[in-house]
Amino acid sequence: MEELVRRIQEDGNVLSDGVLKVDRFITHQVDPVLMEHIGARLAEVFAEKKITKVVTIEASGIAPAIYAAQSLNAPMIFARKAKSLTMDEELLTSSVYSFTKQVTSTISISRKFLNEQDRVLIVDDFLANGQAAKGLIELCQQAGAQVEGIGIVIEKSFQMGRELLEDMGVPVVSLARIESLENGKVSFKQADA
Amino acid sequence: MEELVRRIQEDGNVLSDGVLKVDRFITHQVDPVLMEHIGARLAEVFAEKKITKVVTIEASGIAPAIYAAQSLNAPMIFARKAKSLTMDEELLTSSVYSFTKQVTSTISISRKFLNEQDRVLIVDDFLANGQAAKGLIELCQQAGAQVEGIGIVIEKSFQMGRELLEDMGVPVVSLARIESLENGKVSFKQADA
Repeated sequence: MEELVRRIQEDGNVLSDGVLKVDRFITHQVDPVLMEHIGARLAEVFAEKKITKVVTIEASGIAPAIYAAQSLNAPMIFARKAKSLTMDEELLTSSVYSFTKQVTSTISISRKFLNEQDRVLIVDDFLANGQAAKGLIELCQQAGAQVEGIGIVIEKSFQMGRELLEDMGVPVVSLARIESLENGKVSFKQADA
Repeated sequence: MEELVRRIQEDGNVLSDGVLKVDRFITHQVDPVLMEHIGARLAEVFAEKKITKVVTIEASGIAPAIYAAQSLNAPMIFARKAKSLTMDEELLTSSVYSFTKQVTSTISISRKFLNEQDRVLIVDDFLANGQAAKGLIELCQQAGAQVEGIGIVIEKSFQMGRELLEDMGVPVVSLARIESLENGKVSFKQADA
């Protein structure tokens, strides 16, 4: 997605060989117009898949996911990273290891929101090691829902996430693919859409 | 906002005299069409205020805030509830006490995203005791930004939040105002918009 690649070049900051900071337009301050375009593009790619639910994880997946859901005419569900006191019902839960924070956390979705009839598009802002997306796939599988695909805003292609998810049998579509962050410079691969 | 009141009547669940659960369309599963209408309505109310930033707090404030920001042609910033390892820069921080979770947490926004020129609309899904919104106002004040108003999706008018915020000199606009949740029934007051 040309508009996204250009924006990463203009406003992204390479903090190290492994870390790209996009807090000016995605992960902290968020550009609604770019998010709408991202959501619409992902919806277009998965238009034939009869998606019934868009699933993401709090917090920075929510903006691209809500626009994708709107374009697909489906509700969006965001998995929570910790149980809240008012989530008292039966939960789908899964463990997610964060390489950045070096902690394992539990993510959850209320069971009532996913079932065997659902065809799910998972959306997230970043794909690196794929642990968050893997956890979301597991939540969907517990509910018997079919995961039709994963739509990613920015993929760090030099990490193992895509391979992990494709090995689980789920197609991955990334709107920007980063080959390397070496020497403070973002090098892109051809994106999927 | 008639559409919102109707939706609360249809899909909201009263868990106790103090707790209304709206996880079917706002706080967990999210209806993008309703969120767009909510964002557009808040933008309309604050259209004359020359808003430059819409500020919310993760996670369930993000959906209404992004649509309000889009309608106002402004970026949206979501405050984080805990520092992340990649948020290494100077932060605006504030303490927020949660009556639900009975813990005090730190919320933060990178200082670079708010300044003296900013005219801020704060958006959140719920207003109860007003602690989260108060924390967001304090973050804006630290940056010297002007808080032009607070747009709330659902106000629990039987709690003290509105009074607290109005005492801070900030206008509050709530799209649904709940007078009482007694006897398992939602009683509404006249909403602000």
